[in-house]
Amino acid sequence: MDTNKNIDDNLKDNINDDENSKVLYSDNRVEGRNAVLEVLKSDRDVNKILIASGNREGSLSKIVTLAKEKGIVIQYVEKSVIDKLSTTNSAQGIIADVSVKNYIDLDDIVDGIYGKNEIPFLLILDGITDPQNLGAILRTAEAVGVHGVIIPKRRAIGLNSIVSKVSAGAVEYVPVSKVVNISSTIDYLKEKNIWIIGTDMDGKDKFYETDLKCPIALVIGSEGKGISRLVKDKCDFIVNIPMIGKISSLNASVAGALVMYEVLKQRGINK
Amino acid sequence: MDTNKNIDDNLKDNINDDENSKVLYSDNRVEGRNAVLEVLKSDRDVNKILIASGNREGSLSKIVTLAKEKGIVIQYVEKSVIDKLSTTNSAQGIIADVSVKNYIDLDDIVDGIYGKNEIPFLLILDGITDPQNLGAILRTAEAVGVHGVIIPKRRAIGLNSIVSKVSAGAVEYVPVSKVVNISSTIDYLKEKNIWIIGTDMDGKDKFYETDLKCPIALVIGSEGKGISRLVKDKCDFIVNIPMIGKISSLNASVAGALVMYEVLKQRGINK
Repeated sequence: MDTNKNIDDNLKDNINDDENSKVLYSDNRVEGRNAVLEVLKSDRDVNKILIASGNREGSLSKIVTLAKEKGIVIQYVEKSVIDKLSTTNSAQGIIADVSVKNYIDLDDIVDGIYGKNEIPFLLILDGITDPQNLGAILRTAEAVGVHGVIIPKRRAIGLNSIVSKVSAGAVEYVPVSKVVNISSTIDYLKEKNIWIIGTDMDGKDKFYETDLKCPIALVIGSEGKGISRLVKDKCDFIVNIPMIGKISSLNASVAGALVMYEVLKQRGINK
Repeated sequence: MDTNKNIDDNLKDNINDDENSKVLYSDNRVEGRNAVLEVLKSDRDVNKILIASGNREGSLSKIVTLAKEKGIVIQYVEKSVIDKLSTTNSAQGIIADVSVKNYIDLDDIVDGIYGKNEIPFLLILDGITDPQNLGAILRTAEAVGVHGVIIPKRRAIGLNSIVSKVSAGAVEYVPVSKVVNISSTIDYLKEKNIWIIGTDMDGKDKFYETDLKCPIALVIGSEGKGISRLVKDKCDFIVNIPMIGKISSLNASVAGALVMYEVLKQRGINK
């Protein structure tokens, strides 16, 4: 299953990313039935819960019910995956991936912008799965004053400790909102008079020849596939980033940074 | 020793970076006395050679002599490091890190530009150690038509298979030159009438308000320390990238991309 693969890869990223990963990793994982139950009862946001297949009886049913109530993704995996991820050897077939920072309601982000009397500047990450990219995007977003970053609940990396480290601390300052559905989120933003801008090779105008002074939500596509068809169709306009070499695309965090800085430049650095 | 740590980290990056690393890793490592000797006799470029300490007798002396003649960095490490890196179990205390692509003489790069009747556009990477960053920089460099990328021989990551993968193939198209000394390389470039541009918080002008249409070599600083003092003093001018948040620096590949694209924009995409 695609989702399975994705989540496993993300977890592997956490483990393999660097020599400190063991320590970092345990920073945002909670293992064992009681510990996971407690974290679910607390107000800390949980990115997802991994449960070893065939291990749903007893206290797990309470966990599953509570997780579903809170809309948290549950992923059933082979027991060997849990064993490999466990750092305590007492995972009891369950590990929760706890966010290093709580997610913010998109409503609160949008209302907050108008309260500050600023022109809205949001990012929509359409399926970023690489923690290096999410961290780098948050770092640039903080530098240019992005008001909030929107990520999907599924098939995307969340705020884990690798992302936090790569972001150079930006994760503490940029509000991140997690949504169930990017497409309906775009409808909501349009109602709020925010323009949706995508970047794509097919885009008609170069990003630096497009007026970006209006309220905008910039869509950054995933590493492998770019912006999904459905989301692209919903964009109000698509800009292109010119390339004169043989390679046909840029790194997602680089492409995002180019357009983010163009917004900053056009609006003026004193806003 | 600083260098030791650096090189070890780079090797660890190679091993740990992702699930395919085992395969990727063996793509650009040669193990064992005979194999290393053969690669040294060939015209393939070697990034560095790791030798287990206290293991210099016999056929190793021939390897050491040949490596020194060719100016290849030799690194003496604990035997356990070699054992950990070895994928064949027949390393015999020696592993060569072979470049995935041969390096090009800087002379040839510079002469080639004037032969093409284009305005020189070079990058100088002042100590980039992260393969993710080098790969992303090469990818953007290829997209904007950079003529060549200059990296230092020591305390920096070379062209390994992780860099190649992250570059999305750009490593095949962008000439990379490896130099012993960045400072004297800058003197050489100045003699060729190329302007040296650095980026720094202290820079007087914003990068997008600076004329970048002249022949330039853009210096990108290392991840941790930025541009070194000595190199900064040699820059003809320093531009700044405005930031309005709390974080004080951008990811190296992002900062580089912003200025690279400004060059492309100012010169016009049809050059």
